[in-house]
Amino acid sequence: MLNLQSSTSYRWLGQVQESLDEILIDHAHCEYKAAATAMSLMGSYIADRELCDEMTQIVAEELEHFHSVLHLLERRGIPFQRQPAGHYGRELNALVRPNEPLRAVDRLLIASLIEARSCERFSLLAEHVADPELAEFYRSLFESEARHHTTYVRLAKHFADEETVRQRLKELAGREAEIVAQGNALPRMHS
Amino acid sequence: MLNLQSSTSYRWLGQVQESLDEILIDHAHCEYKAAATAMSLMGSYIADRELCDEMTQIVAEELEHFHSVLHLLERRGIPFQRQPAGHYGRELNALVRPNEPLRAVDRLLIASLIEARSCERFSLLAEHVADPELAEFYRSLFESEARHHTTYVRLAKHFADEETVRQRLKELAGREAEIVAQGNALPRMHS
Repeated sequence: MLNLQSSTSYRWLGQVQESLDEILIDHAHCEYKAAATAMSLMGSYIADRELCDEMTQIVAEELEHFHSVLHLLERRGIPFQRQPAGHYGRELNALVRPNEPLRAVDRLLIASLIEARSCERFSLLAEHVADPELAEFYRSLFESEARHHTTYVRLAKHFADEETVRQRLKELAGREAEIVAQGNALPRMHS
Repeated sequence: MLNLQSSTSYRWLGQVQESLDEILIDHAHCEYKAAATAMSLMGSYIADRELCDEMTQIVAEELEHFHSVLHLLERRGIPFQRQPAGHYGRELNALVRPNEPLRAVDRLLIASLIEARSCERFSLLAEHVADPELAEFYRSLFESEARHHTTYVRLAKHFADEETVRQRLKELAGREAEIVAQGNALPRMHS
């Protein structure tokens, strides 16, 4: 359903469980970036009414999640701060082809894959994190990330035919699996 | 109250009343840009909790206004499309100083002045536009734009002392008045 070509390794789960505070800070940044991505896509394709409607809803939901993570951080006395980003988003965004409409297809499909990977990882965290409040929180986010994945794939079909989108999604999912397999010394939602 | 250093000329009112459809399209773009500006400021100063809370509210309000304008356009059968931007935003943004914290002060104060000018112009439109639906719509936007103006000025004081902010606001308001006095052949909310 999520179109991912790999499952997250136990390496990541081990890395994350030792650094749950840092992961929570990174998670807040991820929610902000997801909102900012939706806002930016709306600006680029502003005459597409369905896209504007969907992006408006995603902006609202991601900002709500952002504030939920900030509340969790506050209640736990973890200061929210900037921290160096991992390689995941940068390497994925480098795959965007420069010319329209291919650029739109790639931006939307990459957004869909990031949502899919978040969804897969929230599901893992919900299952394996011992802290019951955190486990429940990750569980509560699963459904909306899965829905956002589907929305982005559907919107990509405004810019190319179904078969082209299917092929490109497969290619990009292959690259996403390679990028995530590299791992990262920094514990991150997408390390 | 709005810290503007000039009142809008009758030239603008005349220009706008001949091009209400084009102004409505520009208005939709302005609301989107206001939301995108708030989102971008949140990303730049994400560890400032009050700023994040206020920007989240402004994003939500501006996107709501954006959709209100889209509905008006639809009901009137006016196709929403890209159109060349005026000079106003570009010239104002060129005044932002490059280094922090001056950059933050300038970005917030310029956002405050754009909200102030919008507020002043909505008020004029509410008074002078013959179409009762449009007049009422412009009236309904006045209050939130005035509130956003005040919010941006208050947030600028997170990055510089009160007197520095007051001085810089005066300088920037002077430049804003010059930029708006140039006028623009394109009928726009800020021509």
